[in-house]
Amino acid sequence: MTDENTIRVGINGYGVIGKRVADAVRLQPDMELVGVSDVVTDYRIEMAVQKGMKVFASAPEKREPMEQSGISVKGTLEDLLGEIDAVVDCTPKGIGAKNLETYRDHGVKALLQGGEKHEATGHSFVAQANYPSALERDVTRVVSCNTTSTVRTLVALDNAGLLERGRGVLVRRATDPWESDHSGIMNTVVPEKHIPSHQGPDAQTVVPDLDVVTIAAKASHTQSHQHFWIVDLAGAATREEVVKAFREAPRIATVRADEGIVALNSTLELMKDLGRPRGDMWEVAVWEDILTVQEDQAYYTYQVDNQAIVIPENIDAIRALTGAERDADTSIDKTNEALGIRRSFTGE
Amino acid sequence: MTDENTIRVGINGYGVIGKRVADAVRLQPDMELVGVSDVVTDYRIEMAVQKGMKVFASAPEKREPMEQSGISVKGTLEDLLGEIDAVVDCTPKGIGAKNLETYRDHGVKALLQGGEKHEATGHSFVAQANYPSALERDVTRVVSCNTTSTVRTLVALDNAGLLERGRGVLVRRATDPWESDHSGIMNTVVPEKHIPSHQGPDAQTVVPDLDVVTIAAKASHTQSHQHFWIVDLAGAATREEVVKAFREAPRIATVRADEGIVALNSTLELMKDLGRPRGDMWEVAVWEDILTVQEDQAYYTYQVDNQAIVIPENIDAIRALTGAERDADTSIDKTNEALGIRRSFTGE
Repeated sequence: MTDENTIRVGINGYGVIGKRVADAVRLQPDMELVGVSDVVTDYRIEMAVQKGMKVFASAPEKREPMEQSGISVKGTLEDLLGEIDAVVDCTPKGIGAKNLETYRDHGVKALLQGGEKHEATGHSFVAQANYPSALERDVTRVVSCNTTSTVRTLVALDNAGLLERGRGVLVRRATDPWESDHSGIMNTVVPEKHIPSHQGPDAQTVVPDLDVVTIAAKASHTQSHQHFWIVDLAGAATREEVVKAFREAPRIATVRADEGIVALNSTLELMKDLGRPRGDMWEVAVWEDILTVQEDQAYYTYQVDNQAIVIPENIDAIRALTGAERDADTSIDKTNEALGIRRSFTGE
Repeated sequence: MTDENTIRVGINGYGVIGKRVADAVRLQPDMELVGVSDVVTDYRIEMAVQKGMKVFASAPEKREPMEQSGISVKGTLEDLLGEIDAVVDCTPKGIGAKNLETYRDHGVKALLQGGEKHEATGHSFVAQANYPSALERDVTRVVSCNTTSTVRTLVALDNAGLLERGRGVLVRRATDPWESDHSGIMNTVVPEKHIPSHQGPDAQTVVPDLDVVTIAAKASHTQSHQHFWIVDLAGAATREEVVKAFREAPRIATVRADEGIVALNSTLELMKDLGRPRGDMWEVAVWEDILTVQEDQAYYTYQVDNQAIVIPENIDAIRALTGAERDADTSIDKTNEALGIRRSFTGE
């Protein structure tokens, strides 16, 4: 049934990122989702069963409790690894690095997420920035949501010859919308204790010569991040040139306050109205009518859907590691078309 | 009883700012609070009565409803104006400018607040920046909380010869803690629709040649503002020089995350522990251990207690307009001592 060129993919860790990557893999014409693996026994993995996904136990001793909860378990992670070309590790921070040896033993290409250290894989990935260097590697790491957005936007400016250096203030969400364990509603702002915050150096794991400094803080909302950037331009430029650079880059969409998109929650409402799965926004949403250029500097703000933005990068990284597609733009276009990624959400 | 050199002060508008200025005036050895004037009939003005302040009606027709609510009203605003040297107008935005003619008719020096336009008074005030230019003027405008903090910190760097230009991201509170009318708990971030936001140009009404751009947003908390700054330094400087510049400037206090001051709410808790009236923080609180200098740039974050920071400026502006004290530093020191303003909150 399966074409021999189809990439067989497994997901280890069916959480915030894993469940989204699973859905995205299923939408790709050149991929097959063989199964997902986890250790939980509750509604989260039950949803995978309801969607017709094959479920595996990430640890042998978890198989029995999962089955006792009524989950139909097809085998263990090791069984899943025997049937796939690539595994997307979406396990909690710190576990992915420990899983690498198992993946290697099974000769399976492996993607870790941004919670792991760059050193764990020796390669960090953002499709538009460094797809070719990931080709046929055994492992890579798809960087975090904040880093992904930083790289997408600064590389967009750099590719247009506009970037000298970028300085960003990242106002992060307090916790994810679905969470209640780790942190509740806050009524404060918590600055990160170190400047630069880790996202700047992390972006340099993807693009080593990027001149970038980030300052981060956690605010009291739960829905996505907002970044504010002060960018020194490489010489005089117009506002139109900066907007054009963003418009021409993949996975950046422009939004406008004067069209009613005035805050993080308006964009997310728009995603629901567009029928996006889970209301996800895979694009970096740059406010076009707030973006300002004065002399040698550009000032702009954009939104990062922290649960969704790395999903297309994971898909591209699968193609790069397996060597199934050698051209970055072709992979990016294929992913974008399958997911329905846009350059603007209104108009056209 | 009153010394003839005592400055007789009245407050018109006993709200967030007015009630704090009233308390501060009472603490000054060279000032007398003659009375406060308002139009409300509820607990807010009742508190002034309980504190033994004379209450006046800001509009003649409000006198009767106020008296019917059990408030002992001593007269109208016009009566108050007949007994004072200076009036601090703390009425809602837009009303202050309309009151100026009345103040002028009574030959009373007048201070407006930052909600009014610079053009209304032709002079905007931050004590450490431009006290001398306010001397014996009829009117001035004490700039808003965000602008006050911007001027205090950038002028501190400039006076130390360190400033080339400052770029700030201002993360504002959603609403004041006591409010429930205008805006409730939000779960979002709302970027301001224009860059630069008004605070940058507003700082230039105080210091015209300040090279400053601000980007602002409203976040979901209710307690004070957090600013994040990226400052181009006037040549190479060390971290210690920048910290020293802040330490030597008035009304800037340093705080440290490694001493448990990790967020806006920790600082405000500290103010309560210090026994500050209403838990107010008059100082700009700069995180000393987060402040970073890299090559030609300084990065730092500080907190602005939006309800309290302008109070000492109002006191100094009273002395400047009345000419009671011609030296800025003497007035600043006097105000600071009376209020108990500090350079750090722990240690010493």
